[in-house]
Amino acid sequence: MKHTIIIDTLGSDNGPEAILDGAKAVLEKYPEISLTIVGDEKIIKKHDLDFSRVKILHAPDTVTNYDNPMLSLYEGKVVSIFKGMEELSKGEAIGMITAGNSGAVLVGAVKYLLTPQRTRPCLAAIMPNTKGGYTALVDTGASIDVGVNQLHEFARLGRDFMKKLYKIDNPRIGLLSNGSEPTKGNKLVKEAHKVFAEDKELNFVGNIEGNKTLSGLCDVLVCDGFAGNQVLKNAEGMAVNLITEMVKYAKVKHEEEHIMPLIGYLMKTYDFESLGAGIVLGIKYPVIKCRGSCKKEAIATASNVLINLSEDKNIYDGIDDHRK
Amino acid sequence: MKHTIIIDTLGSDNGPEAILDGAKAVLEKYPEISLTIVGDEKIIKKHDLDFSRVKILHAPDTVTNYDNPMLSLYEGKVVSIFKGMEELSKGEAIGMITAGNSGAVLVGAVKYLLTPQRTRPCLAAIMPNTKGGYTALVDTGASIDVGVNQLHEFARLGRDFMKKLYKIDNPRIGLLSNGSEPTKGNKLVKEAHKVFAEDKELNFVGNIEGNKTLSGLCDVLVCDGFAGNQVLKNAEGMAVNLITEMVKYAKVKHEEEHIMPLIGYLMKTYDFESLGAGIVLGIKYPVIKCRGSCKKEAIATASNVLINLSEDKNIYDGIDDHRK
Repeated sequence: MKHTIIIDTLGSDNGPEAILDGAKAVLEKYPEISLTIVGDEKIIKKHDLDFSRVKILHAPDTVTNYDNPMLSLYEGKVVSIFKGMEELSKGEAIGMITAGNSGAVLVGAVKYLLTPQRTRPCLAAIMPNTKGGYTALVDTGASIDVGVNQLHEFARLGRDFMKKLYKIDNPRIGLLSNGSEPTKGNKLVKEAHKVFAEDKELNFVGNIEGNKTLSGLCDVLVCDGFAGNQVLKNAEGMAVNLITEMVKYAKVKHEEEHIMPLIGYLMKTYDFESLGAGIVLGIKYPVIKCRGSCKKEAIATASNVLINLSEDKNIYDGIDDHRK
Repeated sequence: MKHTIIIDTLGSDNGPEAILDGAKAVLEKYPEISLTIVGDEKIIKKHDLDFSRVKILHAPDTVTNYDNPMLSLYEGKVVSIFKGMEELSKGEAIGMITAGNSGAVLVGAVKYLLTPQRTRPCLAAIMPNTKGGYTALVDTGASIDVGVNQLHEFARLGRDFMKKLYKIDNPRIGLLSNGSEPTKGNKLVKEAHKVFAEDKELNFVGNIEGNKTLSGLCDVLVCDGFAGNQVLKNAEGMAVNLITEMVKYAKVKHEEEHIMPLIGYLMKTYDFESLGAGIVLGIKYPVIKCRGSCKKEAIATASNVLINLSEDKNIYDGIDDHRK
């Protein structure tokens, strides 16, 4: 086998079966890949998989949205995210995929995957922008309460990531705010603005407003995790509302023939399965965090990204981007 | 004349002319309304208006997004927002409309329009929700750095507003967060959650995620002004992106005939001119804050709202809501 990918089956909103369907799709699509599947052994064994290419790690416990992820580390449970990251830390797999709790992903990353520089990791989402490129949103919801130093670190990690993966010489860094002027922002953003502007190694392009996050004005968009979560979810909510209205309209006006293909096109352009996926920055080996609500396609896409990363290809090689 | 409305002509992104076009539309639509127009006398006088129903207040100075609104009060300038609010405080007009700086709106409201209870005012946006009703978003961007007590006050002001205007018995209060569970949120939101849950006079329905802000799960959605700005702007940005894609698609596929009417329908449903307008809560007389980028239609809609308010009608009476 050429590569091994670790897949965590627990913590998904759709149950382990949805993730195992994803694992099956990966095994079928990539004959040279083997999987290490983490979760409840009984459930995994029941699934229809090519077990000759599967290693099972039994870890039946999970961190729910009601748990404190930090405490979960020390409760004597066998938590699948942590088990998977421990396995990843051995350096034998090319990366890990999980749909589990974002907080637990960060806690596990800090415990098992810190670099020698001991950078605090963060979670980036790669969003397709209207210029035909991609913007990395850092942080997308893992680090909720942060200080200026952390925002500064997010900017540097995002820059290095976009430099490496998209071969962008000097990635443009934007700061999410409530206005484009340097005087706009909450206390945290105003302070960060000063620090970013003074850092000569950052190609800082200033504040970006919420209606311009997908406009391609920057390659890396920096914010705290609470705001990053709002960016992704409000855009998604609006898209879902508009598409729902479009379906209603198509039915009432008997225009399905013309409107449904348009809806298909829009859903492909703003694919929230990929949009919502995050990649942990600043750690030894790559971890992709899919949305809790992800389906099997997201697991296959994430595997494709991990393969590209390990082979130093453009991150979206082999992934359908119909804009290209 | 039955009512007087005060219109501030400065601070708009489209210059005083756009606002004056709005004033003209108001005079034409409502023959029983007179206007007090605030701004640069020379510019106002040049505009084609029925001056028999117009009083001009000369106040040529403005607060830009680069100014500190608080300092602007004491710089000896004749700022149009403040001049208008001073006039409003006399109790002769039914309300005021401005497209100026949100911070200045709040500063002026505190100086000229406080109630005897001396409540700190806030800015609400009335958003059409997918259940066919309206949700008040409080605060929409005027109070950026706030504490728990202020969020609590926003909840109470929003509740009283929705009770009075929509005759809702016990408005449902939601708290914007990064997850629906009570454990989710930044430090501020977690603390506010506890306070809201303990207040027996609030019909608190818990945390609301960013993708559910327009789902009609609550009548009042509470958040700080930074987050509220993200809610409005990210939804708007996504809508603009999708509509731009739709126009492109219609052209390439030669489907204009079918797609353009759909776009018209969607733009009416999610009318960002109204969506972006705010109303100041917790002050003596109503002030409507239109978006900086508003056009004349927004001024006419805001005037309609002020008339309904003064006549104790449903706030959207006479305003086209094609969902009804």
